[in-house]
Amino acid sequence: MSEVLIGACVVAQSGGPTSVINASAYGVIKAALQSEVITAVYGAQYGILGVINDVLFDLGKEDPYELEMLLYTPSSELGSCRYMLADPRKDPTDYQRILEVCQKYDIRYFFLIGGNDTMDTCSKVDAFMAEAGYECRVIGIPKTIDNDLYGTDHTPGYGSAAKYIATTVAEVYKDAHVYDVGTVVVLEIMGRDAGWLTGASALASLCSAAPDLIYLPEIPFTFESLLVDVQGVYQQKGKCLVAVSEGIRLPDGTYVSQAKVSASDGFGHAMLGGLAAFLADVVHRDMGAKVRGIELSLLQRCSAHIASQTDIDEAYAAGVYAVEQATEGKTGMMVGFDRRGERSGYECVMTLSPLEIVANKVKKVPASWIDVQNHTVTSEFIDYVLPLIQGESKRVVENGLPRFAKLRKEVLRPTP
Amino acid sequence: MSEVLIGACVVAQSGGPTSVINASAYGVIKAALQSEVITAVYGAQYGILGVINDVLFDLGKEDPYELEMLLYTPSSELGSCRYMLADPRKDPTDYQRILEVCQKYDIRYFFLIGGNDTMDTCSKVDAFMAEAGYECRVIGIPKTIDNDLYGTDHTPGYGSAAKYIATTVAEVYKDAHVYDVGTVVVLEIMGRDAGWLTGASALASLCSAAPDLIYLPEIPFTFESLLVDVQGVYQQKGKCLVAVSEGIRLPDGTYVSQAKVSASDGFGHAMLGGLAAFLADVVHRDMGAKVRGIELSLLQRCSAHIASQTDIDEAYAAGVYAVEQATEGKTGMMVGFDRRGERSGYECVMTLSPLEIVANKVKKVPASWIDVQNHTVTSEFIDYVLPLIQGESKRVVENGLPRFAKLRKEVLRPTP
Repeated sequence: MSEVLIGACVVAQSGGPTSVINASAYGVIKAALQSEVITAVYGAQYGILGVINDVLFDLGKEDPYELEMLLYTPSSELGSCRYMLADPRKDPTDYQRILEVCQKYDIRYFFLIGGNDTMDTCSKVDAFMAEAGYECRVIGIPKTIDNDLYGTDHTPGYGSAAKYIATTVAEVYKDAHVYDVGTVVVLEIMGRDAGWLTGASALASLCSAAPDLIYLPEIPFTFESLLVDVQGVYQQKGKCLVAVSEGIRLPDGTYVSQAKVSASDGFGHAMLGGLAAFLADVVHRDMGAKVRGIELSLLQRCSAHIASQTDIDEAYAAGVYAVEQATEGKTGMMVGFDRRGERSGYECVMTLSPLEIVANKVKKVPASWIDVQNHTVTSEFIDYVLPLIQGESKRVVENGLPRFAKLRKEVLRPTP
Repeated sequence: MSEVLIGACVVAQSGGPTSVINASAYGVIKAALQSEVITAVYGAQYGILGVINDVLFDLGKEDPYELEMLLYTPSSELGSCRYMLADPRKDPTDYQRILEVCQKYDIRYFFLIGGNDTMDTCSKVDAFMAEAGYECRVIGIPKTIDNDLYGTDHTPGYGSAAKYIATTVAEVYKDAHVYDVGTVVVLEIMGRDAGWLTGASALASLCSAAPDLIYLPEIPFTFESLLVDVQGVYQQKGKCLVAVSEGIRLPDGTYVSQAKVSASDGFGHAMLGGLAAFLADVVHRDMGAKVRGIELSLLQRCSAHIASQTDIDEAYAAGVYAVEQATEGKTGMMVGFDRRGERSGYECVMTLSPLEIVANKVKKVPASWIDVQNHTVTSEFIDYVLPLIQGESKRVVENGLPRFAKLRKEVLRPTP
């Protein structure tokens, strides 16, 4: 298990970007450059596609300062993809290609940073390499703003998105309460299958600026209830701030965003705008009140300027840990966080979980953390999220603007 | 002119909020509390309506630390309104009421923080007081994210919104370039009559992440040109980031956002979502590419967490200056900024302009600062805006979240 394996490594980024996925990449790159057994550090362009297409960047040629700036650069600097590998028993083409490229560059370490699907890719690649008798250690590094991965207390990327959401909700609350005029605001937050992000809006309660109503995908949604709930708050306060997950569903399981489509006029007009605009319209028609829909859209996953330093530190540490564990012999595992410390304060240790228990599952918000009656989350939810949003980013600012990494991305012996 | 006038003061906030309008209020409050001639400091609830309705807060009773937190609290903490005073010759009711309330509390200083319309209100109140023979000094303090006020080099509130926009555009650019898949993003930015905010998106060029195409309200817009322009960029780069002002108009002067409405199906479906969603749909139908519309909505005017410290400092200074000038005898004036320093660095001095030359006019982006050919702004525009976004907010963070002012807002002898 812990025998010395000498060779190159490749790091790839996969799935939707976050504010800190580059911090994990930096963790891998820095630790790999310092490793005595890793002979070269390559970055795959556009995730696993970069390996398949043989487009690898020679990261050893990058300026160390620019690499460090990855800590504060949002999105996936190496490029990403949403490419799903086939079942190798049905179509081994991609796997054979991956093996070929690994052999070509003597790649013995394979680091993929991503979510559920990426862990599935890691798992398949790991199994294929083992079957092919090519020694290559594959470690998955978790990343998703959705926080819906098994095998870890939480996922890097989530804390920063949660901090952005809580901060923005608090600020919008202030804005939405400025006039002596009735106002309803509907904020749409990401999270198709789990309510971790939308629930984080409740953190704004610490600024006395929480949403009045929070709708998570875990709880069946009805238009009737929405209208009754909003009316109730509005009659009492003259204002109502609503946070909805993009993934809310009707009791029959249909996504509300799909109900929206089928309610359209057949020319797709109703598809303009997202769920927020649609629900704002539903509420406006019912109540006549001034209603504004706001979709946080990409901003919630790329607003590195308000990233959580805890999240940056953990994302970086996960990358470093992946390299340490791989060089010590581990493969077919995902890095995770195990929360310790309980009442004495927040503390996390890093762990490894087998990829197969992680891949293709969705971790939802526990039912006991959801206050269905009051359309909010419980104090357990707040206690869980709060440590993850601590610390202001130590990002570098130049000219009053973010200083992103500027990588050379010198392609390794490109295929013509 | 400079005779000593002893009495109370009132401060009111008006129009759409900004990230720093509370900093100006704090400037007024702090200077007024320290003034030897100002006997009491009142805040009007919901702008001028607070005076008309006799709902005034006794700001002398607030905790000084909480008042200081106004520097970092977005929106108008005293409340705002969009109430237009009638022509006093036609209907003097409101003015008489204002005079009555001023007499009741011996208010001799009147500070209104707002935009074009507010300066009009100031001007009318000032004239009415003078005619009525009631000595009351009225000073307007400029505020608008739109930056479209005459009588000042720039307006407090603009720098912070510009910083938010430039930062967000740079981050979205990173996100929108992550996949090896064609993507068009249309970002909708505020500014109904002038392109100052939308033009600020070009600052992201300093992060190598500027929009490919910028459409300002100053330049007539056509759908044909949009489609040709986007196609051109897309064919070359496989991506296209577009920044549009909400105020773009067709050559006949119609707002594009109105064209959107008339293109609807009569049930208002096409009104769902804003201009961004509409233009995204137009581009998608034409090109078939993946297109995402993002509306920055309220976020661009309330994101105090990324406020410009220069803007905070200037907004505060404008409030202090208003008090100084009023106590020295000035009335019927608006505080402004005059840019000095030229090549030796940014420097602004405060000035006073007569309200009548300020009120009800819109300052547009100079034609020579717009690069019509390339759908962007010139280096003169960048040089103008860049100093205004400098400095990170010294805001207080508690629990990883913004620390807003918590005022008591004790109402002064309320009318039953």
